[in-house]
Amino acid sequence: MKEIILGYRNRIISEMESFFGRVRENFKMRDKWFFDVLDRLYEFSISGKMIRGALVMFSENMFSNKITNDSVKCAICIELLQSGLLIHDDIMDEDTQRRGKDSVFFQYKKLADSMGIENSYHIGESVGICAGNFAFSLAFLSLAEIEKKKVLDKLILKFGEEMAIVGVGQMKDVITSGQRELPTEDDIVSIYRYKTARYSFSLPFSLGAILSEVSEDDISLIEEIGECIGIIFQIQDDKIGIVGNENVIGKPVGSDIKENKKTLYYLYLMNSVNDEEKSKLLSIFGNRDIGVSEVDYVIHLLNKYDIFKKVETKVMEFVSKAKNKISRLSVDDKYKQFLLEFIQYNLNRDK
Amino acid sequence: MKEIILGYRNRIISEMESFFGRVRENFKMRDKWFFDVLDRLYEFSISGKMIRGALVMFSENMFSNKITNDSVKCAICIELLQSGLLIHDDIMDEDTQRRGKDSVFFQYKKLADSMGIENSYHIGESVGICAGNFAFSLAFLSLAEIEKKKVLDKLILKFGEEMAIVGVGQMKDVITSGQRELPTEDDIVSIYRYKTARYSFSLPFSLGAILSEVSEDDISLIEEIGECIGIIFQIQDDKIGIVGNENVIGKPVGSDIKENKKTLYYLYLMNSVNDEEKSKLLSIFGNRDIGVSEVDYVIHLLNKYDIFKKVETKVMEFVSKAKNKISRLSVDDKYKQFLLEFIQYNLNRDK
Repeated sequence: MKEIILGYRNRIISEMESFFGRVRENFKMRDKWFFDVLDRLYEFSISGKMIRGALVMFSENMFSNKITNDSVKCAICIELLQSGLLIHDDIMDEDTQRRGKDSVFFQYKKLADSMGIENSYHIGESVGICAGNFAFSLAFLSLAEIEKKKVLDKLILKFGEEMAIVGVGQMKDVITSGQRELPTEDDIVSIYRYKTARYSFSLPFSLGAILSEVSEDDISLIEEIGECIGIIFQIQDDKIGIVGNENVIGKPVGSDIKENKKTLYYLYLMNSVNDEEKSKLLSIFGNRDIGVSEVDYVIHLLNKYDIFKKVETKVMEFVSKAKNKISRLSVDDKYKQFLLEFIQYNLNRDK
Repeated sequence: MKEIILGYRNRIISEMESFFGRVRENFKMRDKWFFDVLDRLYEFSISGKMIRGALVMFSENMFSNKITNDSVKCAICIELLQSGLLIHDDIMDEDTQRRGKDSVFFQYKKLADSMGIENSYHIGESVGICAGNFAFSLAFLSLAEIEKKKVLDKLILKFGEEMAIVGVGQMKDVITSGQRELPTEDDIVSIYRYKTARYSFSLPFSLGAILSEVSEDDISLIEEIGECIGIIFQIQDDKIGIVGNENVIGKPVGSDIKENKKTLYYLYLMNSVNDEEKSKLLSIFGNRDIGVSEVDYVIHLLNKYDIFKKVETKVMEFVSKAKNKISRLSVDDKYKQFLLEFIQYNLNRDK
C-alpha cells in the first residue's frame, strides 16, 4: 500500500512542479513577494505525505479503472488546500515548527526580523494569513485546469462546501479548546468529523468519484467511509500528539497538551482521575512551559486509568462502521482490500 | 449614477439572501457554529456599498446589453471575497471597528469573553481567520452556480488569479508598512495596483466581460481601465484615512496614520519636511495612542507643503490614462459616460 501511495505522490509532485511553473509564467504580476511566496508554498507543499492527494487518484482508479490527469489536478488542489490550512493552523496554534522546519508564518517572522521590522511576530502572522489565502486561490486554479469541463461545477461545489466545513470545524475546535468546561464526546467527534475527516478523506474520495461520474448514492457512501476513516485517523493523530516522538513527527513533544486540545484522551482522562490528579492536570494542559516530566505524568495517568484501551474501544466502533460500508461498495475487491489496509495503516502509524 | 449602483445593490442583496438560504439548507453540516458564522457573514456582507458587485453587472450590461442572473452570482462572489478580505484585514490591522460596528474577529473576541475564555483576543483572531476562509469558500460556491457553464473555467481562473494577486499585494503592504526605510513611489503604486485596484475594479469588469464572451483584447483593456480607476480610488481612500470624518467612514479618525500605512501622502510629506518635523512625524506614524491633535498636526504639514496638490497631480496622471483607454472601448457612449462619471465620483467621495 505504501508503494502505491508513494507512486501517486511522485506523480503529484511532478505535476505540481509544472503547475507552479505555469503560475510563475502566466500571472499578471511580477513582484518579488509573488516569487517569494510561490517558492515557499511550493517547497512546503511538496514536503507533505500527500495522502489526501493520493486518495483522489485512488478513488478515480477505484471507480473508473484509470487515473487521468484530471485527478492529478484535483490532487494538487487538495494538497494546496491542505497547505493553506496548515499555514493558518500554525498561526492559530502558535506553532513555530512544522515538518521539522520553521512554519511558514515563522519564516516570515524571521524575515521581518532580518529586515529590522519591529513587531515582527505580528507581521509574520499577517503575512502568513496572506500566504494561506494565496494557497487557497491556487487550489481553485488547479481545479479549473481540468479537461473534463462538464463536471467542473460539481467539483467546485464539492470543494467549496468542504473547504467551508473545515473552516467551521476549525472554529469549533478553537472555541472548544479555549473553554473551561469539558466538551461532550459528541462535540469532540464532530470536531474530528468537520475539522479533519471530511476534507482529508471524504473530499478526496468524492472528487475521484465525481470525476468518474458515479451516482449520488455512491458518492454519499464513499464520503461516509471517508468520515469513518478520518475519525480513526484523527484519534491516532491525537495519540501521536501526546506520545509521539519529536524526531519522527517533526513537532515538539506534547504539543497537543500545551495547546489544550480537547481530545477523547483528554475527556476520558478528566472523567477518570481523582481531585488531586485533576488539579495537577489542569495546571499542565494549556501550559506552554511544560517539559518532558509533565508529559510523562500525563502518559502515566493515561496508563493508570486504562485510557488508551477505552479510546481504542471507541475507535473500533468506527472501524466496524467503515468495514460495513466498504462491503457495500460496488467496486472490485482489490480496492476494498486497499481501503481495509489503509484503515489498518492509520491505526498503526506513528507519524 | 448612484441610483444605478443602488439598483444593482438591491438585486445583489436579494439574490444573496436566497444564496445564503441555499447554503443553510443544503450543507452537510448542522452545527451551531455553522449557523453562527453564516449569520454574521450575511449581515456583514449586506452592509457594504457593493460597488464591486455592481461593477460586474455594469460590465455585463456594457458588453452585452443585458444583466443575467449569472452576473448577479458573480457579484455575490466578489462581495464575499471582499468580506473575507476585510475580515482578515481587520485582524492584521488590529482594527476592532468596521462599518461602525465591531469587526468580525472582535465580535468573536467578545463572544469568547462572554464564555469566560482566557486569551480571548487570540481566540477571536483565530476564529476570524476561519470566518474569512469560510467567506472565500462561499465565494467560489456562488461562482459555481452560474448557468453559462462554458465560461465557468475562465471565471474561476480569473477569480483565482486575482484572489492570489490581492494576497500578495496585502503581503507587500504589510511588509512595507513595517519597514523603516521609505518605500519608492513605484512600490506604493504597485501596492495600490495589487492590493486594491485589480480585485476591486479589474476583476469585476473582467467577470462581466467573460460572461459576455468578448475578445481577450477587450478583456485586457477593461482590466487596465479598472487598474487606473482602482489606483484613483485607493489614493482617495488614503486621503479619507487621514482627513475622513469618523461618523461618515465608520472607522476611527487617523487610522491609517496609526497603522503607519505607506501612502503617497506619507512619502511626499516625508520627502518635504525639515528634520524637526520629520522626527515628530516619526513619533506619530505607527503610534496607536495618538489623538486628534497629532492627526491635526499631520494635516497641518500636508497643507504647509502642498502635499494634497502634489498627490492630486499624480492622480490626474491616472485619470487621463483611464480616459484615454475608455475612449478606445467599443461600447455604447452611455457606458463610457458612466465610467467617466464613476471616476469623478471616486475623486470626490468622502467615505
